[in-house]
Amino acid sequence: MNHTTRIAAAALFAVALSPMAVASTLTVNQSITEAEVLAGQQAWCKALVDISATHQRDGQAAAKALAEKVIDAAYGYQMGAVLFKPTLTTVPQTFRTSRDGALAYFVGGNAAFPKDTGFALKGWSKCQVVNSAVFIAGDSATTMGNVNFTGPDGKITSVDKTWKFVKDDKGALRIVVHHSSLPFSGA
Amino acid sequence: MNHTTRIAAAALFAVALSPMAVASTLTVNQSITEAEVLAGQQAWCKALVDISATHQRDGQAAAKALAEKVIDAAYGYQMGAVLFKPTLTTVPQTFRTSRDGALAYFVGGNAAFPKDTGFALKGWSKCQVVNSAVFIAGDSATTMGNVNFTGPDGKITSVDKTWKFVKDDKGALRIVVHHSSLPFSGA
Amino acid sequence: MNHTTRIAAAALFAVALSPMAVASTLTVNQSITEAEVLAGQQAWCKALVDISATHQRDGQAAAKALAEKVIDAAYGYQMGAVLFKPTLTTVPQTFRTSRDGALAYFVGGNAAFPKDTGFALKGWSKCQVVNSAVFIAGDSATTMGNVNFTGPDGKITSVDKTWKFVKDDKGALRIVVHHSSLPFSGA
Amino acid sequence: MNHTTRIAAAALFAVALSPMAVASTLTVNQSITEAEVLAGQQAWCKALVDISATHQRDGQAAAKALAEKVIDAAYGYQMGAVLFKPTLTTVPQTFRTSRDGALAYFVGGNAAFPKDTGFALKGWSKCQVVNSAVFIAGDSATTMGNVNFTGPDGKITSVDKTWKFVKDDKGALRIVVHHSSLPFSGA
Repeated sequence: MNHTTRIAAAALFAVALSPMAVASTLTVNQSITEAEVLAGQQAWCKALVDISATHQRDGQAAAKALAEKVIDAAYGYQMGAVLFKPTLTTVPQTFRTSRDGALAYFVGGNAAFPKDTGFALKGWSKCQVVNSAVFIAGDSATTMGNVNFTGPDGKITSVDKTWKFVKDDKGALRIVVHHSSLPFSGA
Repeated sequence: MNHTTRIAAAALFAVALSPMAVASTLTVNQSITEAEVLAGQQAWCKALVDISATHQRDGQAAAKALAEKVIDAAYGYQMGAVLFKPTLTTVPQTFRTSRDGALAYFVGGNAAFPKDTGFALKGWSKCQVVNSAVFIAGDSATTMGNVNFTGPDGKITSVDKTWKFVKDDKGALRIVVHHSSLPFSGA
Repeated sequence: MNHTTRIAAAALFAVALSPMAVASTLTVNQSITEAEVLAGQQAWCKALVDISATHQRDGQAAAKALAEKVIDAAYGYQMGAVLFKPTLTTVPQTFRTSRDGALAYFVGGNAAFPKDTGFALKGWSKCQVVNSAVFIAGDSATTMGNVNFTGPDGKITSVDKTWKFVKDDKGALRIVVHHSSLPFSGA
Repeated sequence: MNHTTRIAAAALFAVALSPMAVASTLTVNQSITEAEVLAGQQAWCKALVDISATHQRDGQAAAKALAEKVIDAAYGYQMGAVLFKPTLTTVPQTFRTSRDGALAYFVGGNAAFPKDTGFALKGWSKCQVVNSAVFIAGDSATTMGNVNFTGPDGKITSVDKTWKFVKDDKGALRIVVHHSSLPFSGA
C-alpha cells in the first residue's frame, strides 16, 4: 500500500465538547524511508543474481522472461522514460531510456542492440551494495556508492552507481534514474 | 539543519576489497515526519496564546511585533503567497494571500483591513488541536481537523482547519495553505 | 499519459563527433501546469452539474452511480484518505476521509450518514470558480477561492474552497485535500 | 524569485455578486521548467570554462576563489551533502559528498585529496551539453547525456553525465546529484 494508516488514540478532549470525547487521527504517509531504499537496492541485487541463476539453469528465454518481470516491477518505464546509463554500453547506444533498451542490456538477444551480450547472464553469484550517501528528498530518494558483483570465478567487479527511486501509486519503489560506470582507471 | 546526517557502520566489506574495509553511509533525509507536523501545530497554538498574553500585558504594539515574528517564522509568505482563508474574514477581503493581510487579521490596526479587530487579541488562554487526518506527501504535509480555542470566559470556540506545511531550505516547517472556518451551523 | 514526450531537434554536434551528428532529447515532464489545474476545477464543476441533472432526469440511483464514477476518477481515496471537509457537514461527521463519506455527502441515501441529503442533488444548474490564488509546488497544486453554485431558483450560493491536486501514475489530476466552507456571516 | 506572480484578468463575475465584480488570481509556480534546466546546464559549462580561463590568466588561487563561488551558487552542499561522483576520482576518494571534496576535484591544491590535480584547470575552452533525456518530476529535474569538453589541443573529451537539480528557497537551481563517468571503452 502507498501509505501507512494508523489510528492513534488522541488526547482526551475537553469535557465541554462531549460529542467527540475521544478523537483519533488517520495518518497517510507517502514519504520514502531509508529502510525502503535499502530494501529496494537489495531487491535489485537479488533480481540480478536470480536472473543469472535462471539463465544457467533454464536458458536465455527463461532469463529474459524473468528480466521482463523485474524491469516492469522495479523500473519506471511506464512513466515515459528511465534515465539509464548501464555500465557497459557504448556510443551510439549508451543511454537506455526505453524498456527495450534496458531488457537488451540485461539479457541480450535483441538485434537492435547488437553489442549487448546480457549483463545479467554473466553468472553473478553475489551482489553487494556499499552506499556512500543516501539523499531522501521526501518524494524521491537517491543513492550513490559502489555495487560489487561476484562473478563465476569469484572475482569481484565493483561499479560506481547512482539510483533514484520514486514511489508509484501503489507505494512500490521504482527506479527512474540509474547511472552505472566502471571506476576510473586512474591512468 | 534541513537534514539529519548519520554515519552508520556499514557491513564489513569483502576482504578482496581491502582499500575500503569499512564503509560508512552519509544520510540526508528531508522528509517531513509526523512528529514535526504535530510540533508545527503546537507551535502555532503556542504562538497564538503568546500573542494574546502579550497583548493583555504589553498592549497592541507589542502583540503586533510578536505576530510579525511568528508570521515570518511560521508562514511561507516569502515564497510569493500563502493561501490563507482565516476564520472570520469577509468579502471582499476573505483571502489573505499577503503578509500584510495575515498580520492585520491577527492583530488588527491596519486601515487597509478595516473589519479586522485582531483574532489573536481576543484573550485566548488555550489552543488545542484535534486532527481528523494527517497526509504526508513526502515534501509536504497537510492536516485537517479541529482547533479549539479557549476564550477569556472559558468558552471554547471550535473551528475546522486545514494546514499545509512544507520545509524551507533550513529545514523549518512553513505554512503555505491555511483554511479555517466555523463549523456549519446545520441550520 | 503521465508525461509529455517530445523529440527536440538538438543543436548540431561538433563534426569531430560524427557518430552522433544529430542528437535528440527525450523529455518527460510530470509538473502540474496551471492549465491542468484550471481544467481540473472545471471538471469538478461540470461533474456536479451533471450529477444534479442526472438526478432530476433519472433519479437518485443514477445520480449515485455517476457520483461514484466521479469520485473514483477525481479524488485520491485509493491513496488511503482524502482530507475532505464538505461545506455542510456537522459534528461528529464533519470530515469525510473515506470514499463512503464523500459519496454520502454528494448523493445521500446512506444510513451511516443520516444528516446527508445529497449536496449534488440540489438542482445546481451552474458552477463557477473564482480563484483568489493558485500555488503550484511542482508535484502538487493548491487553489483557494470561491466557487459559486446557481440553484434551481437562480439564487447563487458562494463558498470558500481550497483544493489540493496531485497527479496519479497515469498523469490524471486527483483531489487529495478539499476544504469547503460557507462565508463567515460577519455577525 | 522562487515564483512567478501574475495577475490574470478573471472572467466577469455574476452580477448578483457585485462586491467582487472583477476578480484576479495570484499564481505562484515553483515547478522547474525545461528552459531552467537547460540554462542550469549552460551555466555549469560556462563556469567550467571561466575557471579554466581564470587559471590561465590569474593562477590557481584566483581559479580556486571562482570555483568556491560557483560551488556555493550551483551545488546543494548546504543541504547536508551532494551525491557527486566526478569523472576522474578513484578509490577511496571516489565520492565527493562534501564541499571540500568538490572544490579539491575542480581546482586541486588540497593535501587531503592528494590525487586531485584540478579538473577545471585543464585549459577547457569549450563545454557542450548533449542531453539524451530530461525528466522533470515537478520539484526536481534530472538530465542524462553527454558533456563534451574541448581541451587546449582542440581534442574533445566526452563524458556520460547525470545531474539532478532542485530549486532552493530563492528559486535558484542547485545540483544535488552529479554522476560523471568516462564512456565504457568497449574492451
